Amino acid sequence: MTGKLYVIGVGPGDPELLTLKAVRILKDVPCICVPKGREEGSSLALSIVKRALNLDGKEIIEAHFPMRKTKGIKASKHQSIKDSDALTLCRSDTFIDSELDTKWQETIETVYSRLNKGINMAFITIGDPTIYSTFFYLYDRLLELNPELNIEIIPGVSSINTAAARANLSLSLADEKIAILPATYTDNLKETLEKFDTIVLMKVHRVFDKVLTILNEMNLTNNAVYVSRAGMDDEKIFKNIRDIKEADLNYFSVVIIKK
Amino acid sequence: MTGKLYVIGVGPGDPELLTLKAVRILKDVPCICVPKGREEGSSLALSIVKRALNLDGKEIIEAHFPMRKTKGIKASKHQSIKDSDALTLCRSDTFIDSELDTKWQETIETVYSRLNKGINMAFITIGDPTIYSTFFYLYDRLLELNPELNIEIIPGVSSINTAAARANLSLSLADEKIAILPATYTDNLKETLEKFDTIVLMKVHRVFDKVLTILNEMNLTNNAVYVSRAGMDDEKIFKNIRDIKEADLNYFSVVIIKK
Repeated sequence: MTGKLYVIGVGPGDPELLTLKAVRILKDVPCICVPKGREEGSSLALSIVKRALNLDGKEIIEAHFPMRKTKGIKASKHQSIKDSDALTLCRSDTFIDSELDTKWQETIETVYSRLNKGINMAFITIGDPTIYSTFFYLYDRLLELNPELNIEIIPGVSSINTAAARANLSLSLADEKIAILPATYTDNLKETLEKFDTIVLMKVHRVFDKVLTILNEMNLTNNAVYVSRAGMDDEKIFKNIRDIKEADLNYFSVVIIKK
Repeated sequence: MTGKLYVIGVGPGDPELLTLKAVRILKDVPCICVPKGREEGSSLALSIVKRALNLDGKEIIEAHFPMRKTKGIKASKHQSIKDSDALTLCRSDTFIDSELDTKWQETIETVYSRLNKGINMAFITIGDPTIYSTFFYLYDRLLELNPELNIEIIPGVSSINTAAARANLSLSLADEKIAILPATYTDNLKETLEKFDTIVLMKVHRVFDKVLTILNEMNLTNNAVYVSRAGMDDEKIFKNIRDIKEADLNYFSVVIIKK
């Protein structure tokens, strides 16, 4: 019998936003795999889980992924990102380079070996696993190794919903349409702002100045709210996005525009 | 001291998808307000909470909202909804008619009177409160009565994320763009299907045949997955949406199209 792999969304940061199901499974499995390297050196997903339950005696597999794109952004700072840079950055998001590829391969082999020994595992991910989670880079490759692999995805509270809740905003009512965009794509932003009722811009730290310019041009600046690190201890909410300073911009940030 | 109002997302249906925070607050508050009338006669949100914890001794306020639009749909059935009907239906979604208005007013007064007595309350809602939740119809009016009212929105696991998780689908990776549409708006569906990577169609039971026609025309039928009642006991997933029968269509259904 191979083990079962649970892919668990641990919510946006507040340990209380873990689900009962996540807690039950995390208590039960002897082995937890956690992606590391996105930001801040240590795994945010693991720190959330550690604050909610005792992990003594469990094997913790930290999967290190060199996130070159993030380093690149830190070096160039958000203001200096030009169109071409932004495009390169967003392309490197989808392109798994060889070093990254080797790291993923190692993780896949580690996870697969545990499952083959009959060990149940959890792969934890910030927010919800279906929203911009690294897990799906592994998913297909695991199934290639064994199409019968038992993988269950446990949804979590997403950072998008949390950001809206913390800002007391409804993302949608009745027949309203929502667009969720990685802010690196500012090319079609105007068109999307015209056609949708609510627009959520992810990872907006990369292109904040450009976004602000477009919102100003469209008289939508007053319709925008910026939520940084929703659900975390150092969460910040700006109802006037003109007040945002460079230090307020970070990876875990969204702009919500409601028309 | 006025009481505090917690607006709580109780997740999509599985009681284990309640968050720790939701459970703690629901145990703590002496009074729970629950919207009733959306579907099936009784409140789904309340039944989820009842399966997770004992509500003995708490006051349960059931807020009855006549959902005329739903009755209208039931009478006409999804196949017979023409363009004009669909438009009328979706307009009636945003238009609160006078009977509905009176019912909301009664609920607001009930909630407000409890808060004024210093009673902490929870208003529970399926999924996540920021996604198509009735609560926001009350929100502004409550603040009109008292702008200092203490209202906290507790995010929950949304049915959209749950549907994707149950179908083992990523809604977005890297620089992918997501559109979430109430399916009543089929007018711009083609354009949205062209421009977005992932398209989530809500309440698709109303216009399923029309959606299927458009997907067929665009060769996207094989990219669509239908999830009915994600996270509930009678959940159904169709990887081939051509297999869907009329009986499989219902209010709690989404189509996810991944390109």
